[in-house]
Amino acid sequence: MSSALNSNQIKFKDTVDDEQPTTRRLRNLSLHLTPPSDHRYNLEFEPCSGGRTKMIVDAEKLTIYLRGKHKDIQEKVFEYFNSRTDLQTPIEILKDDYRELCMKQLVGLVREAGIRPFKYVVDDPVKYFAMVEAVGSVDMSLGIKLGVQYSLWGGSVLNLGTKKHRDKYFEGIDNLEYLGCFAMTELHHGSNVQGIQTVATFDPITDEFIINTPNDGAIKWWIGNAAVHGKFATVFAKLMLPHDKKGVSDMGVHAFIVPIRDLKTHETLPGVEINDCGHKVGLNGVDNGALRFRNVRIPRDNLLNRFGDVARDGTYTSPLPTINKRFAATLGELVGGRVGLAYSSAGVLKIASTIAIRYSLLRQQFGPPKKPEISILDYQSQQHKLMPMLASTYAFHFSTVHLVEKYAEMKRTHDEQLVADVHALSAGLKSYVTSYTAKALSICREACGGHGYAAVNRFGSLRNDHDIFQTFEGDNTVLLQQVAGDLLKQYQEKFRGGTFSVTWNYLRESMNTYLSQPNPVTARWEGEDHLRDPKFQLDAFRYRTSRLLQSAAVRLQKHTKTLGSFGAWNRCLNHLLTLAESHIETVILEKFIEAVKSCPDESSRAALKLVCDLYALNRIWNDIGTYRNVDYVAPNKAKAIHKLADYLSFQVKNIAKELVDAFDLPDHVTRAPIGKQSPGEAYTEYTQYAGF
Amino acid sequence: MSSALNSNQIKFKDTVDDEQPTTRRLRNLSLHLTPPSDHRYNLEFEPCSGGRTKMIVDAEKLTIYLRGKHKDIQEKVFEYFNSRTDLQTPIEILKDDYRELCMKQLVGLVREAGIRPFKYVVDDPVKYFAMVEAVGSVDMSLGIKLGVQYSLWGGSVLNLGTKKHRDKYFEGIDNLEYLGCFAMTELHHGSNVQGIQTVATFDPITDEFIINTPNDGAIKWWIGNAAVHGKFATVFAKLMLPHDKKGVSDMGVHAFIVPIRDLKTHETLPGVEINDCGHKVGLNGVDNGALRFRNVRIPRDNLLNRFGDVARDGTYTSPLPTINKRFAATLGELVGGRVGLAYSSAGVLKIASTIAIRYSLLRQQFGPPKKPEISILDYQSQQHKLMPMLASTYAFHFSTVHLVEKYAEMKRTHDEQLVADVHALSAGLKSYVTSYTAKALSICREACGGHGYAAVNRFGSLRNDHDIFQTFEGDNTVLLQQVAGDLLKQYQEKFRGGTFSVTWNYLRESMNTYLSQPNPVTARWEGEDHLRDPKFQLDAFRYRTSRLLQSAAVRLQKHTKTLGSFGAWNRCLNHLLTLAESHIETVILEKFIEAVKSCPDESSRAALKLVCDLYALNRIWNDIGTYRNVDYVAPNKAKAIHKLADYLSFQVKNIAKELVDAFDLPDHVTRAPIGKQSPGEAYTEYTQYAGF
Repeated sequence: MSSALNSNQIKFKDTVDDEQPTTRRLRNLSLHLTPPSDHRYNLEFEPCSGGRTKMIVDAEKLTIYLRGKHKDIQEKVFEYFNSRTDLQTPIEILKDDYRELCMKQLVGLVREAGIRPFKYVVDDPVKYFAMVEAVGSVDMSLGIKLGVQYSLWGGSVLNLGTKKHRDKYFEGIDNLEYLGCFAMTELHHGSNVQGIQTVATFDPITDEFIINTPNDGAIKWWIGNAAVHGKFATVFAKLMLPHDKKGVSDMGVHAFIVPIRDLKTHETLPGVEINDCGHKVGLNGVDNGALRFRNVRIPRDNLLNRFGDVARDGTYTSPLPTINKRFAATLGELVGGRVGLAYSSAGVLKIASTIAIRYSLLRQQFGPPKKPEISILDYQSQQHKLMPMLASTYAFHFSTVHLVEKYAEMKRTHDEQLVADVHALSAGLKSYVTSYTAKALSICREACGGHGYAAVNRFGSLRNDHDIFQTFEGDNTVLLQQVAGDLLKQYQEKFRGGTFSVTWNYLRESMNTYLSQPNPVTARWEGEDHLRDPKFQLDAFRYRTSRLLQSAAVRLQKHTKTLGSFGAWNRCLNHLLTLAESHIETVILEKFIEAVKSCPDESSRAALKLVCDLYALNRIWNDIGTYRNVDYVAPNKAKAIHKLADYLSFQVKNIAKELVDAFDLPDHVTRAPIGKQSPGEAYTEYTQYAGF
Repeated sequence: MSSALNSNQIKFKDTVDDEQPTTRRLRNLSLHLTPPSDHRYNLEFEPCSGGRTKMIVDAEKLTIYLRGKHKDIQEKVFEYFNSRTDLQTPIEILKDDYRELCMKQLVGLVREAGIRPFKYVVDDPVKYFAMVEAVGSVDMSLGIKLGVQYSLWGGSVLNLGTKKHRDKYFEGIDNLEYLGCFAMTELHHGSNVQGIQTVATFDPITDEFIINTPNDGAIKWWIGNAAVHGKFATVFAKLMLPHDKKGVSDMGVHAFIVPIRDLKTHETLPGVEINDCGHKVGLNGVDNGALRFRNVRIPRDNLLNRFGDVARDGTYTSPLPTINKRFAATLGELVGGRVGLAYSSAGVLKIASTIAIRYSLLRQQFGPPKKPEISILDYQSQQHKLMPMLASTYAFHFSTVHLVEKYAEMKRTHDEQLVADVHALSAGLKSYVTSYTAKALSICREACGGHGYAAVNRFGSLRNDHDIFQTFEGDNTVLLQQVAGDLLKQYQEKFRGGTFSVTWNYLRESMNTYLSQPNPVTARWEGEDHLRDPKFQLDAFRYRTSRLLQSAAVRLQKHTKTLGSFGAWNRCLNHLLTLAESHIETVILEKFIEAVKSCPDESSRAALKLVCDLYALNRIWNDIGTYRNVDYVAPNKAKAIHKLADYLSFQVKNIAKELVDAFDLPDHVTRAPIGKQSPGEAYTEYTQYAGF
């Protein structure tokens, strides 16, 4: 990862004036490649203040703190697939075979291993998400196929339907007899769900709805389970109700259960056209299909009628007064998918960082003159690539665990404040964590060089499978705007004397405290104790968010006058996205600081504090321009932050082995020869894999 | 890409005090999803200064300027594969079939289409690189397989061997009868080539070398053409010469031609063990293998003896005095590979940005209330993702064309200064361009949402295939260090009164001018004319490089005293990498500014100037912390740079269609349904692909 280049070439080079140009050139080249010998070397960083010895971390104790009460269900998943080698996904598999294998994996999990996802969805969402994360570690396609069946298709029946639907479908969904799809997205409409064009027209004569795809752009696209296995689909369509004047009224988007294949013969039903969306960048174990409907008739009972119902006579009733409110209520029920993706994405990051860090500890390349080669993780550049990533993995762990717990609490209590909180928090964390993980997977591959490019070492499939996490269940750029919108609403509430929701509580103080000019004295403080003080770190994060929020509000107000609200929003869009990211980073830091404080084991707590400091200072340094621009930090402090972030990366490197061991991922889950827990086995397994 | 969220929710929201919590929650949700109606909207950016009309660009004229004299050979490649549908790589293909197809593609190209790569390598390197870029656009595996045969295996015979090798092998390499490998990398040694352990011991009795793999770590790994097709390999091994005292002397790394398979039967030869490196993240059309040698005997003549020879009696002779100089000379001949990768990587970026931008112009999602939806490229966030990328594509085009021309000139003249220049420039551009393109491919996929995830739309295979460009032919992190090392050498030369090499010429002035304190007056200038003045832009880039260079030299000197040279280099590693990147960005900007000036067509020149300004200001803004930290720009100027960069992205968006059309990539080369040149066909082709 580092060349043998070094600064000696400057000081030790002899100038020979009479040498030939070619010789000089070659000498120069050789200086690139072989450093003059120098027996002194030191890879240790001197401590920034005072002497320190290497931190001792007990990975097992740290594991106990990290892994929640649902370790058992995860172990059950891991062990089932470890014992069923016939169900493990091979590195090379054709799409159609992969889909069948993925179906078999799902059936095995539910009918043989005794995992009952639908029951967990209802009774214990935290357990459900833990199980999904484990399943995704085995094969992300399987995790997604399971999610389509239980969260999306199953979840839509549970949450958008009523008792009659639950009574009729629960058992079949649970035991996989009723494989189903979630048919929302259309060819022309993904993010803009209100723009979908599929229609469901009520026929009062036959007491049926008639489902139609009015044009090619309205073909349901990317529908998981549709291409091969699905029997039913929850179809989102505009409900059309005929009225007196022989016209129809558009009642807005509703969800309908539409049978798409015969329960016995599995033949596609009349009026339904299903095509295969074909190969994807990843997740090829999932059979995504495209659905077109031509006058498909379904009974009136198939309307999922929790938020809006049609009576036998065609009368429409709803507990909610407007189309927009019904639509919002419908989509609001789907927040669980985002919670699961944020949580699982952090799980993917654990796997990738474990493999990359273990290999970087094992791999040696170059070294001081006449000394053995050193591990590539001893290079500052490799620490820079991987240590803030490891810190982020820990940070995301705690914040997504927090999210999952909040979600479960919301499902239990239906508390209105929690609903709002979980909605915005899930949008923000899903977006931020999946974007980060996607980039991190590329960095891991690159940091592991050529051997990182071997498919067996997993970075390729992890990246390809995870990639779409950034897009589905809400495009990240769109979700960040929801976060920004929520913040602006909170900002307005403040001026009306309202209360902030729990997660954004810090803004209450921010808006009063932080918007004054930065303190010119503290702006110069550069001591390590100060920089590692959670108060400084949180203040810095909160200050940035508050400032971005206030300036966004001012700019929006200004531009709205000339551009209208849509134009103003668009003019400030980059600003708003930065605001949203800043806010999420703040929430993540808060949760991390809380987790450090709550850790009962002293040595684990010290390790977590170190990792948390790295997370905080790395993020502040990444955005140092913002802080400098308002003189929140003076130049000397900026420099000190930079230096300390490098130093903390070095310190974290010293306990990196224990920190990844604490993720407690057995070799049969990481499954990368170069990432074996016991470094002695790594190269051996890898050469054996190639046939030696 | 944008939600319908907008600022109106702040100003137009009614507060209803007596509403139920659930109702309020739902109303809040609905406000997220549907903006209050507002008929005013405006997506146009008001010009920063004065009124402007949309720029008119003639894509055809711009194409003429962009495409060099070797358009013909590229067209020949494109047309051959367009006519031979049986040779086109399908989306799903098993590894072994892919390798056979790739071999057929190569044979077709050489024996049927009349492309003679080896002749171009010798006679016209610019033509060779243009051809390789086109071949890589058809299939990157084919481009790499061709490069292994002609640049690496062929190039090693030509450049490291002498006339006897050329006479014996030229024809067979040219006509593909002698398929060959380049066996340098070992399992344990990639970047550190001097650390390889394979040995070639001279046997004076039989007049042979005996090639041995002393341990598993020395197995040659990742060797292209080895797993299936290769007949020969250029094997890099430590030359061991027996001497009087019955011991052997290690003469350092040399290259040997080792036959690995029987020319007629294709059987693996005795003593050679070949295994398959298996699936890779991408490039699965290339048959990478692993080679182990057990007492493989080759004639003395098989030593590629340009830089070192062994006589019949075992006497060693060389035109170069030391092991290190011979090693440097050997590796120095391999620079062509880096030149080709930098150039081809820019070609990959052209394809990806063409597809992403065409789709972003076509795709509509959301829009102002009661108005049609707008194109996603109308969103500031999408412009932010794709317009600086488009500007970089242009920037990389001009700088890699420059590199290719310099390389050809070097091959023609063997000018010593040019050799040094091309060495450092190729290391820098290969590293910078491939790292950028790798990230850009992920951004393109994400920017195109779900349809970007369809394999048929190519982002997946482009990314997977291109990914390893960052690693092979010199790991990017290692190459950047070579650039930094070169800069430090130049810095030293300066103080000795020596001359700078051509590319770094600017540093001569920099070191005198830029290291004084920034001018507090110009630091505040924020006018558009000033910010778009090439002098301001170049000064800013050069200032940064000069400052980083000077501070790196000071830090290295300081740390060397306590840490030794290796430790000091490592302590400053992140700093040195930043320095190298800053320098390369500067070179790229210089070449871009020159290309703008040289453009003969006025409207094309104006368009290029706009794109160049965006490249420059985007990079300055990305590193605004550095500039602010030394008060090179005052806060007001930082803000103006940010605003102007956003504005230029908007302006470039207005001519984005023409700018990608000017790359002149026909649909049968881009091959992504969503990226069709004629937008009317895009969705149609895509639905037809799915079977509708």
